[in-house]
Amino acid sequence: MERMKVLVSTAPFGATSATPINLMKDAGVDFTINPFGRKMTEAELAEIIDEFDCLIAGTEAITSRVLANARKLKLIARVGIGLDSVDLVQAREQNIRVSYTPDAPSPAVAELTIGLMISTLRSVQISNQEMHNQRWQRFFGRRLSESVIGIIGVGRIGSRVIEHLAGFGSPEILANDCDPSVAARVPDHVKIVEKEQIYRDADVISIHVPLTGETQGMIGASEFQMFRKDAILINTARGGIVDESALEDALVKKQIFAAAVDTFGHEPYQGPLCNIEQCLLTSHMGSMSGDCRERMELEATQEVI
Amino acid sequence: MERMKVLVSTAPFGATSATPINLMKDAGVDFTINPFGRKMTEAELAEIIDEFDCLIAGTEAITSRVLANARKLKLIARVGIGLDSVDLVQAREQNIRVSYTPDAPSPAVAELTIGLMISTLRSVQISNQEMHNQRWQRFFGRRLSESVIGIIGVGRIGSRVIEHLAGFGSPEILANDCDPSVAARVPDHVKIVEKEQIYRDADVISIHVPLTGETQGMIGASEFQMFRKDAILINTARGGIVDESALEDALVKKQIFAAAVDTFGHEPYQGPLCNIEQCLLTSHMGSMSGDCRERMELEATQEVI
Repeated sequence: MERMKVLVSTAPFGATSATPINLMKDAGVDFTINPFGRKMTEAELAEIIDEFDCLIAGTEAITSRVLANARKLKLIARVGIGLDSVDLVQAREQNIRVSYTPDAPSPAVAELTIGLMISTLRSVQISNQEMHNQRWQRFFGRRLSESVIGIIGVGRIGSRVIEHLAGFGSPEILANDCDPSVAARVPDHVKIVEKEQIYRDADVISIHVPLTGETQGMIGASEFQMFRKDAILINTARGGIVDESALEDALVKKQIFAAAVDTFGHEPYQGPLCNIEQCLLTSHMGSMSGDCRERMELEATQEVI
Repeated sequence: MERMKVLVSTAPFGATSATPINLMKDAGVDFTINPFGRKMTEAELAEIIDEFDCLIAGTEAITSRVLANARKLKLIARVGIGLDSVDLVQAREQNIRVSYTPDAPSPAVAELTIGLMISTLRSVQISNQEMHNQRWQRFFGRRLSESVIGIIGVGRIGSRVIEHLAGFGSPEILANDCDPSVAARVPDHVKIVEKEQIYRDADVISIHVPLTGETQGMIGASEFQMFRKDAILINTARGGIVDESALEDALVKKQIFAAAVDTFGHEPYQGPLCNIEQCLLTSHMGSMSGDCRERMELEATQEVI
């Protein structure tokens, strides 16, 4: 019998634990790890996908063009959450199963979100940059517990963010979810409201919805116009949900106070937000805690085996 | 009757709320606000203190040299916490009353501490700096809830840090306090241990003690030698508690993973820590949330009136 051939396109892989790699070795799987050490382009993936039976994927685009060359592919095992990068219609057409690891990254994303909220409320990133340029300037800030926190999307991650906030004296929380049943499972101090009320009233607005046709460009110029002048936008979900050039505009024109962005429409990101100090930027690190990454990789690998 | 003359040496003052200034105006107080807009030096303060009855002070040094010129002074009202900057023996000698506002800044310091913990655990400050230089590099991190957190000093601020951590699934907490009665008032998941056990076992070590003769230089070269290689030190207490050159050494030699420092032996700080990217630096902003600052200034002003 021919050995199963697996392409690991996600990067990094096996950096925090050798377990997933050992699992594949023990199972006699013939595996190839992304030779670029970074997110592969559509063209790169399309070129090498041909010979593989399974793909252990990150967030790289798995388009119909890639799938057209994936003659042997039986399974796409996404390491992480969100299937927006996969052409699901085409995958179904070719009988390619698609799995993902929705629970694994949630704790790491939720913790990072709280860190980004405190950092932007207190201008930590700006003070750090000034200090490293030997400039001492003290910035006034606001506290989480004195702020109105808006949570858009009360799924695995949004719910955890709400739990973490409870440790800060349960600040006022406005939340929105497309599923009306969330109202029954949030704590009493969380008010379920329309998105527009969150845009208008929240000091900190944090996005925790998947990228879908409906959420694509959800926050753009007309939404930023509703925001408070001292509002902070946190996006640890997906880049496509926020219109990046509208965000740039809102920050430059001081329509809003600050933003923290971990995910981008095109990654690696090198666009104009890099020039705005009120924009705290991280490189899609939401899931990058050792324990969560390990769990994600392990679950995806087990799916393959 | 001559009007009472008040010098406000702390800076900024009245920036978040005009209430303290209006209070003084209404009371007919003749007040002068720090003309430098920054921490005054010993010499500057000594030169102008002569004519004032009350001093609304920040953390500037109020030494015997300053007090020697303070012939009329009746009250030093410290905006904030910590009396390490005041020569208390000499003040008592001259019958100068010293007040402070110990409760007001605690919530803001405790929140900032959690933000600094998450930022350093996830290398947020480094990713932000890289991104602003258009370099995309993903850093692995650790989660609060998977870490052992060491709290040195379980007073107003340390207790609040422990409360905030409870929202993160109550990670393992090792705590130390010179007052043995704290054992009775901490939650069950907090273990009271010797400082040395914290130095040896904690992933994150956070200092919440006042600067006194006993805590001066408490963490120096021999303590850093006990630290884990992946340990993170957080200091939002007072600069003098940590030996800055030993910290620099520990970071450069990678004896520890990272540090976040908000307070320094000499402020404004411009020393060698500014060149170490694993050292997240803020400019003594622990108490700088609008609501806490307002409360501190108000309480100090009420003391004067």
